[in-house]
Amino acid sequence: MTLTGANFTGFTTSAKGEKSFQAFAPATNSSLPGNFTQATAEELETVLSLAEKAFPVYRELSYIRRADFLDAIAKEIMELGDALIERCSAESGLPAARITGERARTCGQMQLFAKLLRDGWWVDARIDTAQPDRKPVPKVDIRRILVPIGPVAVFGASNFPLAFSTAGGDTASALAAGCPVVVKAHSSHPGTNELVSSAIIKAAQQTGMPEGVFSSVYLSHADVMTFVKHPVIKAVGFTGSRHVGMQLFQAACSRPDPIPVYAEMSAINPVVLMEHALAERKDTIAKDLAGSVVLGAGQFCTNPGLVLMTDSEASKAFRQQFAQEISATIPATMLNKNIHKAYEEGVRTFQHAEEISVLAQSSTAAVAEKYQAQPVVHGIQAADFMSKKEFSDEIFGPATLLVICKDDAELLAALRSLEGQLTATVHATEKDEAGIKPVIDLITQKAGRVIYGGYPTGVEVCHSMQHGGPFPATSDGRTTSVGTAAIYRFVRPVAYQSFPDHLLPEPLQNANPLGILRLVDGEWKV
Amino acid sequence: MTLTGANFTGFTTSAKGEKSFQAFAPATNSSLPGNFTQATAEELETVLSLAEKAFPVYRELSYIRRADFLDAIAKEIMELGDALIERCSAESGLPAARITGERARTCGQMQLFAKLLRDGWWVDARIDTAQPDRKPVPKVDIRRILVPIGPVAVFGASNFPLAFSTAGGDTASALAAGCPVVVKAHSSHPGTNELVSSAIIKAAQQTGMPEGVFSSVYLSHADVMTFVKHPVIKAVGFTGSRHVGMQLFQAACSRPDPIPVYAEMSAINPVVLMEHALAERKDTIAKDLAGSVVLGAGQFCTNPGLVLMTDSEASKAFRQQFAQEISATIPATMLNKNIHKAYEEGVRTFQHAEEISVLAQSSTAAVAEKYQAQPVVHGIQAADFMSKKEFSDEIFGPATLLVICKDDAELLAALRSLEGQLTATVHATEKDEAGIKPVIDLITQKAGRVIYGGYPTGVEVCHSMQHGGPFPATSDGRTTSVGTAAIYRFVRPVAYQSFPDHLLPEPLQNANPLGILRLVDGEWKV
Repeated sequence: MTLTGANFTGFTTSAKGEKSFQAFAPATNSSLPGNFTQATAEELETVLSLAEKAFPVYRELSYIRRADFLDAIAKEIMELGDALIERCSAESGLPAARITGERARTCGQMQLFAKLLRDGWWVDARIDTAQPDRKPVPKVDIRRILVPIGPVAVFGASNFPLAFSTAGGDTASALAAGCPVVVKAHSSHPGTNELVSSAIIKAAQQTGMPEGVFSSVYLSHADVMTFVKHPVIKAVGFTGSRHVGMQLFQAACSRPDPIPVYAEMSAINPVVLMEHALAERKDTIAKDLAGSVVLGAGQFCTNPGLVLMTDSEASKAFRQQFAQEISATIPATMLNKNIHKAYEEGVRTFQHAEEISVLAQSSTAAVAEKYQAQPVVHGIQAADFMSKKEFSDEIFGPATLLVICKDDAELLAALRSLEGQLTATVHATEKDEAGIKPVIDLITQKAGRVIYGGYPTGVEVCHSMQHGGPFPATSDGRTTSVGTAAIYRFVRPVAYQSFPDHLLPEPLQNANPLGILRLVDGEWKV
Repeated sequence: MTLTGANFTGFTTSAKGEKSFQAFAPATNSSLPGNFTQATAEELETVLSLAEKAFPVYRELSYIRRADFLDAIAKEIMELGDALIERCSAESGLPAARITGERARTCGQMQLFAKLLRDGWWVDARIDTAQPDRKPVPKVDIRRILVPIGPVAVFGASNFPLAFSTAGGDTASALAAGCPVVVKAHSSHPGTNELVSSAIIKAAQQTGMPEGVFSSVYLSHADVMTFVKHPVIKAVGFTGSRHVGMQLFQAACSRPDPIPVYAEMSAINPVVLMEHALAERKDTIAKDLAGSVVLGAGQFCTNPGLVLMTDSEASKAFRQQFAQEISATIPATMLNKNIHKAYEEGVRTFQHAEEISVLAQSSTAAVAEKYQAQPVVHGIQAADFMSKKEFSDEIFGPATLLVICKDDAELLAALRSLEGQLTATVHATEKDEAGIKPVIDLITQKAGRVIYGGYPTGVEVCHSMQHGGPFPATSDGRTTSVGTAAIYRFVRPVAYQSFPDHLLPEPLQNANPLGILRLVDGEWKV
């Protein structure tokens, strides 16, 4: 499959710009075929104008029509076949098996949102009927549903080139909500973006969607700010670094009309190991935790970067065992040069700090190959950990920091010192339960997802998932970027007062033609 | 009842500051008894520290306990009796009958949130059970509910000294959500604040709430910024001017950890009068619309400040009739000097514009009394209206602007030129229906509440109310400040993964001890 390197400007492609770039294969340290052309200011304007025109048409389509579109996207992505797996694997350095799994997840997300649209209850219909005789004033008929917010800017992530990128969770949830999407293609996997974008455009044409419902452009940093500040854009979805996430957030806040930015940015995902859990299961925990730390070269936002425990014989034995497990791991290729460089710098900074000791590092033999990350485990005393904010900075990659606390009170203090997190985990047994309630209370205040006896990596796509926590885990911890509840990021409520039945949207009509659960005069009923 | 003028710092009062102020009665142009002392920096710190300590205790109380607290607040407010009505009426210039009605609404809001807490479904419980045998990876058990966000800063509004102030909607919804509240008392009604604060503190003590669950302070402008930027505060509720609302919003965005600001700011609430509605009902519409414009001296965020119609015989006749209705209205006292001054300036600016003509003004006879607003209706051609942005600025008070459009296309263009609105209204008959769909589509995109054949003033407190629209109507159009859905502003979701049943919060336990509707494996069930 030949790649054109052009931008997807609605249903056509366009490559009028003078600047282009190539994709890079980190595993082979070489460039990949295809010249990808940055969009011109004019092309960006075209794309946004198409999204603006598409919005009033797309938002009026029935939920079923939108569902058909999402299902068609999943089908067209599968139709890309091995070409997608191969290109995506080459661009990301991730093994074909992982990419194949991620493709299934990506298509599964589209289909899950399609089912949500067909089910219909997501629209949160609420009806309060009129009481014309109420005193002192009559009660009017009020009915409320959720409506789409407007065109959405989506920034893909490098670490999930399918599931959090061009056709990833943000795109799926925004399209499901009724919002046109403009993707700023990630420069780490432009070929993957081209293949996936072509699948989405095919699906849009097959299912009769308006032109502009989806576009995808390559942008310079300066144009990214123009993009986020453009009046057509009504919300932003982003997954990436805290630095870039905050730039987008500040740009959106400084607009004459501020818009929501859903930036998933930074987390170290603390894991608390209670004493009896270590006494009973230290070997299993050491093995499974090491597996979670090095999974995907540690390049997950849910990577366990911090492990807290009180000092004891059991925890000493655990640390030795865990160090052995990490020593035995094999370095793996990282996603791109920048991420590799940042990882090495992060590790170096920690190792220059006199408070931190290196407890184990995986064999360096294989690291001769470029852009591989060497898993490492560091140790620190809790008092030292709390003394400097930078010790709780995220190191994106297979590194974790063991924090040794002198007692339960210090463990709670260390937890309390943390910023907001995507996840927090506790391992305990029944014998630990006397001390566990304050731990659970605290981690529930700090994180979006709390885990008992498991590991934070692995994020289930389902109705009850919460992927998003207090700042800086995300810029808006009130929402999730994974699971069906992600649709609520791109909608707002509208109340209809005293409308004739036939002028109401279907979910609010008396006959309940969609057959959905609704809150009618305070009672939920179908 | 003697007023102490002190701040409510948790369960004690404190007045260490050196600056104090008096309340002013706009109707009598005189000061009222009581010296109100601005909080010192130290007192503010005390209050925030108490809120921080109260949070982990308050958030853990059962929903029933919180409901008892809210019900007790309503009871204690009623116990204040006539002293509250008299003081509030004197401070606001609003008639005793209006204040009595507003008190009922304020207590009703508390009781509605108490009922919501007892009903329990608001917590949006979602459960996805484990599938240990799923391939390729087992599915873990995930369960999600909403948890409180943290201490909330509430800024009361002058135009609803009870229902949108110390014990108003923001306070009720934040307390219901499980968040401690710190009120920045409005300087227009400090005596009302003192009475209501004392009622809330009594209720908190009676029902065993932790100290710091509620405080109320008088603050200088500089200290307001310290307050909003303080790390303890996790969200802000505000109702007032666009200028101040945006200052708070920008302060919150510039924090190291940005927090949500729910500012309800500015709206002109367009009313579209379709041709046949005017032909059939011009007299009724003229009378009722005039009533809506002058209600409460026009000091409602939902005041109809803009009326659009195409030119026709019917609309000419309507304009004459409407002008007569406005001429016959009686000026009324405004809430305070600043609001009165801003109203006069706003009217003067419009009347200096050559594009705008004065169609009618109420009798000036009664305006001799200070701080009364003279109702006025202005007229403008749609092309002129669209030529300058300032013609769509809000004039807070009993003024409205009639926009005459040459045809339906120009009417749609004028609507399209508007910023976000709290409400938008259309009057039509069946004969207008050919042209009404694009109007409804457009106003649904512009506003949070759309009204058919009614008037925007009067906001029902119910489950389906949406009081909040796209910017600048509110800083966050995804939420409402009126009705039970307001609770969602002060919560965020937390997912519990693989938790033992007895360590889960009650709403998520297998036995469903609260008996609430939950989404279990994709099906809603009790």
